[in-house]
Amino acid sequence: MAEFTHFNDEGRAKMVDVSDKPETARTAIAHSSITVNHDIFEKISNNEMKKGDVLAVAQVAAVMAAKKTWEIIPMCHPIPLTGVDIAFRWEEEEAGHKLMISASVKTKGNTGVEMEALTAASVCALTIYDMCKAVDKGMVIGPTYLVEKTGGKNGDFKREKEVQ
Amino acid sequence: MAEFTHFNDEGRAKMVDVSDKPETARTAIAHSSITVNHDIFEKISNNEMKKGDVLAVAQVAAVMAAKKTWEIIPMCHPIPLTGVDIAFRWEEEEAGHKLMISASVKTKGNTGVEMEALTAASVCALTIYDMCKAVDKGMVIGPTYLVEKTGGKNGDFKREKEVQ
Amino acid sequence: MAEFTHFNDEGRAKMVDVSDKPETARTAIAHSSITVNHDIFEKISNNEMKKGDVLAVAQVAAVMAAKKTWEIIPMCHPIPLTGVDIAFRWEEEEAGHKLMISASVKTKGNTGVEMEALTAASVCALTIYDMCKAVDKGMVIGPTYLVEKTGGKNGDFKREKEVQ
Amino acid sequence: MAEFTHFNDEGRAKMVDVSDKPETARTAIAHSSITVNHDIFEKISNNEMKKGDVLAVAQVAAVMAAKKTWEIIPMCHPIPLTGVDIAFRWEEEEAGHKLMISASVKTKGNTGVEMEALTAASVCALTIYDMCKAVDKGMVIGPTYLVEKTGGKNGDFKREKEVQ
Amino acid sequence: MAEFTHFNDEGRAKMVDVSDKPETARTAIAHSSITVNHDIFEKISNNEMKKGDVLAVAQVAAVMAAKKTWEIIPMCHPIPLTGVDIAFRWEEEEAGHKLMISASVKTKGNTGVEMEALTAASVCALTIYDMCKAVDKGMVIGPTYLVEKTGGKNGDFKREKEVQ
Amino acid sequence: MAEFTHFNDEGRAKMVDVSDKPETARTAIAHSSITVNHDIFEKISNNEMKKGDVLAVAQVAAVMAAKKTWEIIPMCHPIPLTGVDIAFRWEEEEAGHKLMISASVKTKGNTGVEMEALTAASVCALTIYDMCKAVDKGMVIGPTYLVEKTGGKNGDFKREKEVQ
Repeated sequence: MAEFTHFNDEGRAKMVDVSDKPETARTAIAHSSITVNHDIFEKISNNEMKKGDVLAVAQVAAVMAAKKTWEIIPMCHPIPLTGVDIAFRWEEEEAGHKLMISASVKTKGNTGVEMEALTAASVCALTIYDMCKAVDKGMVIGPTYLVEKTGGKNGDFKREKEVQ
Repeated sequence: MAEFTHFNDEGRAKMVDVSDKPETARTAIAHSSITVNHDIFEKISNNEMKKGDVLAVAQVAAVMAAKKTWEIIPMCHPIPLTGVDIAFRWEEEEAGHKLMISASVKTKGNTGVEMEALTAASVCALTIYDMCKAVDKGMVIGPTYLVEKTGGKNGDFKREKEVQ
Repeated sequence: MAEFTHFNDEGRAKMVDVSDKPETARTAIAHSSITVNHDIFEKISNNEMKKGDVLAVAQVAAVMAAKKTWEIIPMCHPIPLTGVDIAFRWEEEEAGHKLMISASVKTKGNTGVEMEALTAASVCALTIYDMCKAVDKGMVIGPTYLVEKTGGKNGDFKREKEVQ
Repeated sequence: MAEFTHFNDEGRAKMVDVSDKPETARTAIAHSSITVNHDIFEKISNNEMKKGDVLAVAQVAAVMAAKKTWEIIPMCHPIPLTGVDIAFRWEEEEAGHKLMISASVKTKGNTGVEMEALTAASVCALTIYDMCKAVDKGMVIGPTYLVEKTGGKNGDFKREKEVQ
Repeated sequence: MAEFTHFNDEGRAKMVDVSDKPETARTAIAHSSITVNHDIFEKISNNEMKKGDVLAVAQVAAVMAAKKTWEIIPMCHPIPLTGVDIAFRWEEEEAGHKLMISASVKTKGNTGVEMEALTAASVCALTIYDMCKAVDKGMVIGPTYLVEKTGGKNGDFKREKEVQ
Repeated sequence: MAEFTHFNDEGRAKMVDVSDKPETARTAIAHSSITVNHDIFEKISNNEMKKGDVLAVAQVAAVMAAKKTWEIIPMCHPIPLTGVDIAFRWEEEEAGHKLMISASVKTKGNTGVEMEALTAASVCALTIYDMCKAVDKGMVIGPTYLVEKTGGKNGDFKREKEVQ
């Protein structure tokens, strides 16, 4: 049969071939955050939001989003995750109360889980926004970034310090 | 039958009842961003990324994510969107090249589309991260925030200025 | 063009046409349950399960499943739900501790939400099983049944008493 | 705030705004087909395929795909379908036995259901391929095309004759 | 960076880490049931339901649900299933005709498939309810329970007798 | 417990057991096409379609559909794909301009990826239809067929020549 000319070769979207990469243990940790006003901070802490326990729902949303990352990010490879964990920490800032979000993801596979950790952290923050937006729509999400990754032939990554 | 005691009433997650809210035209605009190094900026601009045309793929991902918001954010109501549009703008910053992302969403329904706009903007940034991460994993996403919303009985929202 | 002969007419699966049914307010309530041993009852009550707060996660799962019912049940019509609520009640039985689950669903549409309520109640029970199965796999789910529905031209339905 | 320059305006993917289009009754019918060898024809007719009753499974797959069209086709609007029906007809051709597939879709909405009918017909044929491919991988799907559509301001469409 | 304080450690939902569990062959069988009145029993047996061949559709729904279990049950690990099979058996009971449902699931992985079997059996019953509910809404689903599982380091499980 | 009688054994849909098939490298290539009129050909080539860059969006849709094949085709096994690539070629035909679509899929697993390649090619064509249908609804998709597959114990498949 005639060959296909990749006439738009330079701009062609594809899921790159990872068939030959070995299966190794891989981990990634990503951080995001959401800055809220004092009223929301109080309502989250005292569990008074009308839609429910904000952090409990956000954790569930984050774990489920990690598993769906390959559906949401077009060129991501599907990976069977082996573990997902979400943690929180409040920080006082001039702009308000900042809820730090940490998402840790593990797998044993032939490609990394950076996108799964970043997606989990982002969806966690978005869910908190959703559950509190009836009180104030001025909340700010992020910055969102990779903190570290291990596994794979390209070496590990470790960010020196938190992004402000 | 015996009544259910809402023993965990204070922390119960639920999808709040919007049956009695009228159907009105609604819009929302959210911004996110991704800060990249000079190498990635050049490769995006010149369409040299191995996974494809970065911005074209990110726009598609963002539109599709807007439609899936109700699946990703647990207490979000399903809404049949009538329009989604994504736009970009480069800004030069000290920290690097910052790609500003704007997501506009429209519907005619009984609840707002803030979450759809925020989710679209977030997934747009995440997709760019995915397509460029082979070059540098230090990219930073966001801040991500609502810029404006119209429609609904609670009045419009308009942010005064960009979040830095 | 030639007519299609519905040669397997009697057994043909189809999504029945509801185009001409009027949009009315509709509600449905379904019950399910899960019977657990004393050890699990204690661990749920004291929030000691390794996978997290069992009832909080189960509520989230139930709400999300209600929204996905049309994806899970093949001939179900897609319906934009306007409200979902889940409640619990413990009952002591000879067979063990029985957690009663009630799922209430609302919409304004041209078909009922019985399946959404039944699916939410079922997934709620399945999620509890998942989170407790490391302790005991002998838990029993259900019976699961419709308790009441309102709205639609076919009249309301109200079950007289709980199914044992 | 500064305006976004739609620097890639010509190539920007978007879900076009249909907010102002009126809700009307809409229908679409699409045809596809699959041409199989004599062995497969016999096995389908006698219900001897190892994976199950081929046409029954294909009908279910087609109905479910119609409902998921907005998830599969990036710029498609989500539409709550009100009816989906699939029918079959065998035709004898020189190339083999050709199973004609007809998918009819209905809704009441502000955009048409052509894509839902085409997707249902395509997935119906793909499912038949899947269930018979252990016998022969040489089956050919299609052509697949729109037969007619009604509703909407742009007028109806009616194809004159079957595509060979 | 500062450590995250797991301030809500006791109630934190997470997908537990199974990275170190070995991949072994695993199977699970779950049972559910649906009790229907005589009219529905006749209509299912004679294939006279308006929505199609009830059991054929229910089998397809069950297989598809088994594959989607990780999407439906929040803390479930995604597992690539290698086999799913559904079987039926009618039993005469005082309360009516009881259709027993058996779902068998297989995989080769590092976590069990109990949830996949239970979800398949539940969705099978829910689908039958959906296809027959126009005749009678009084049908009762379940009890639903695990019958046996094999594989994994925690040993096999085998229920002694059917749950009534 | 009593045995289940597979009373509808001949017609039972199931996902066949592949647990004992070895994991090997597998590839598949499928072709589809879409025949468009001169106006559409010009608009695609000059990137003047209102919905965006047609081929860029279609490639993304095709890659995402390949990953979702197990969700769309009922009896398909879920497979973690390792690579997906889409290419195009224009051919001049009497009936109009025919855009040939080639979808290549790779995995390392215990079942083939023919369905993933066929689904990707089909969804690619459907997406092009969607993006151009405002100009002309007479476009024809396909034929769609498998071109080659490698891997697995049943031997390779290679089609001799293009289907017209």
